[in-house]
Amino acid sequence: MAGTDKTQIPPLGAAPSVILVNPQLGENIGTAARAMANFGLSELRIVEPRDGWPNERAVSAASGADWIIASATIHATLADALKDFTHVYATTARPRGMVKEVVTPEQAGADMRLRIGRGERVALLFGRERWGLNNDEVSLADIIITAPVNPAFASLNIAQAVLLVGYEWYKHEATSLGQSTPELPALEGPGLQTPDTRPATKDELYGFFHHIESELDAAGFFKTEEKKPGMIRNMRNLFARAQLTEQEVRSLRGMVASLTRAHLKGRGKV
Amino acid sequence: MAGTDKTQIPPLGAAPSVILVNPQLGENIGTAARAMANFGLSELRIVEPRDGWPNERAVSAASGADWIIASATIHATLADALKDFTHVYATTARPRGMVKEVVTPEQAGADMRLRIGRGERVALLFGRERWGLNNDEVSLADIIITAPVNPAFASLNIAQAVLLVGYEWYKHEATSLGQSTPELPALEGPGLQTPDTRPATKDELYGFFHHIESELDAAGFFKTEEKKPGMIRNMRNLFARAQLTEQEVRSLRGMVASLTRAHLKGRGKV
Repeated sequence: MAGTDKTQIPPLGAAPSVILVNPQLGENIGTAARAMANFGLSELRIVEPRDGWPNERAVSAASGADWIIASATIHATLADALKDFTHVYATTARPRGMVKEVVTPEQAGADMRLRIGRGERVALLFGRERWGLNNDEVSLADIIITAPVNPAFASLNIAQAVLLVGYEWYKHEATSLGQSTPELPALEGPGLQTPDTRPATKDELYGFFHHIESELDAAGFFKTEEKKPGMIRNMRNLFARAQLTEQEVRSLRGMVASLTRAHLKGRGKV
Repeated sequence: MAGTDKTQIPPLGAAPSVILVNPQLGENIGTAARAMANFGLSELRIVEPRDGWPNERAVSAASGADWIIASATIHATLADALKDFTHVYATTARPRGMVKEVVTPEQAGADMRLRIGRGERVALLFGRERWGLNNDEVSLADIIITAPVNPAFASLNIAQAVLLVGYEWYKHEATSLGQSTPELPALEGPGLQTPDTRPATKDELYGFFHHIESELDAAGFFKTEEKKPGMIRNMRNLFARAQLTEQEVRSLRGMVASLTRAHLKGRGKV
């Protein structure tokens, strides 16, 4: 899925901040920054990075998401990193035996959208590589995010966890942006794309049906008169499902014409 | 989000297969395998891995997802890797100017659930690190998956792309596993009903492609050699969209055979 377009303007406006608690490897800070950039997140705060700051490995692993690393802030305690937020989500792999609401990344995406839409300041907490967040850290959050993962192979690295939550945030963000800014191609609705052409009209489609059916009839394809209506129906169903474009209908007619003339020419009989 | 529980039983049952086309680095094969394991995917096929196979770096990067690497199969061509599937999704970062349906990972997740529930064999295609899948490769798929990503920073690596699509698959799988009536999924939702037949395998579909393409070639349909690849791609896209059944593929072959013999008989020249 390569394909960055530097001419595109990044989505502006408020987004959740990411807080990495006590990350050990610079590489993981850098790949987390990349995942943030993929989904329009830009504010990174780091609590007690093990190897100090700045970190060259973080810069090189961010490969391109430089502005996130350059503007990251370092904090001595999690409480300090959190102090200007109004709503904090802690990401954990499993239930913590705490009386705290647990949501999926999808639910968190919708919830963050609503909160940020009404001016709240939202943060996402991600724990250390080896064992995540401790219970005291989780207790500073308002709510827990746990992704549905194969319980037999549940380990996600920091960048992957940032990716999933960022993706669910952006999905909702993209939907809402898509309503007002249709000029962003990545945000276009799904569906059949028909570049340089348009869907065929039924008139064009039926014209093709008549063409191929009469040629098949002449060729003796419909063995018996009883079978013919069913065979025609099946064939029409098949082509109807393809949602043909105007250009494709013309191509198909060209193919039929070509094939019916084929062996005559090939054998020098025309 | 660390926290694998080895005592948990992995989710059983059918899941989409992952096909990596011409991957360059063993590390990326390994991290893709890890992302598969996170979301209960286990069958991996690799088309022309640049550095050969087996690959030590793939094994070490898979760190734990060993069974996926050990059972991966290697294929000389994409067509060979696809031949026993009935529905193929190509992941791409941006529109390809092709007439092919585009869905989000979320929509693909729901669609895969339905298809696998009714016994279809489903594959997910991921392209090379540098530039993804080429247009010929995309044309072998039934549908395109494009994730909503910040257009100013759209580059996802292979493992991240596998992670997002795997996550959306597992989200639906997890939901349905939690329900009490798993015996009915084959009847749910929209989709192609194929009474008395079954979806064509890719092998059957490609057999039809070769048949009609060689007849059209003999008939002089592809005016110039330059235009031929694009014309073939367009035609394959059109028929891929129709999601042909095995019976329909046979009918289409019958039509081509009929038409190429047609006017000889019709005019009493045979």
